[in-house]
Amino acid sequence: MADCIFCEIVHNREAAILMETEYSLAFFDIYPATLGHLLVIPKNHIPYLHLLGSEEIQADLFRTLIKACNMLVNSNLCSDYEVIQSNGPYADQDVEHIHFHIIPRYSNDHVHIELEPYKGMVSTQELNELANLINDPNHKKT
Amino acid sequence: MADCIFCEIVHNREAAILMETEYSLAFFDIYPATLGHLLVIPKNHIPYLHLLGSEEIQADLFRTLIKACNMLVNSNLCSDYEVIQSNGPYADQDVEHIHFHIIPRYSNDHVHIELEPYKGMVSTQELNELANLINDPNHKKT
Repeated sequence: MADCIFCEIVHNREAAILMETEYSLAFFDIYPATLGHLLVIPKNHIPYLHLLGSEEIQADLFRTLIKACNMLVNSNLCSDYEVIQSNGPYADQDVEHIHFHIIPRYSNDHVHIELEPYKGMVSTQELNELANLINDPNHKKT
Repeated sequence: MADCIFCEIVHNREAAILMETEYSLAFFDIYPATLGHLLVIPKNHIPYLHLLGSEEIQADLFRTLIKACNMLVNSNLCSDYEVIQSNGPYADQDVEHIHFHIIPRYSNDHVHIELEPYKGMVSTQELNELANLINDPNHKKT
């Protein structure tokens, strides 16, 4: 897609590419949060994860993601890492082309992820009601 | 595995389950960071993502993850969400059984993810040297 910086990288290869498959690309973030920070993307322009419908691309992308994690660990660059993928403006998604961050974690790095419970523990009953609501076809988008 | 709370859930089903496949389970976190916070796990006990070798389980798990994202969005619960998966103690992995968080994001929620660059912009040349190092077989674990 025009004006998508990741489509541009797929097209012109102006990035430090770690690995490439038929449908996916893994390359280093030029603004790394830690040493070895990678981005793994599908070559096709798909903005959000829930819109990735092709099972062929799904399988290829996830295999590439796992392979890239493996390369980081097996090269001894890191033992621990974070996988993060954001969708939509409330999730601060910067580029609207699916991208998985793989962020090696080190002692005393500056990555900070805060997932504090928003209202403590929730009962299984309340959560089952939520599951039913999500499964309710009358509640779905038309 | 004994003493793994996710293996226990796979075994006793004591959770609010949104969906289930042959190899995967998606259920609600009882300490949700936001409304609708899901966990997606492989039924097999695999501690870290880079150790998920089976292509069959890979495909099933990723399909389940994407399907669960889809259900959240299509039910109108949220439009935006975060996918997070942590590996190892430096990444604050609490349960050593692969789990993907799907965290719906809302205006003014309290989720906070800080991925500031640790040293500004890094040149493609420097990142290519890193790619070469990671690809160097002499640098690999024995």
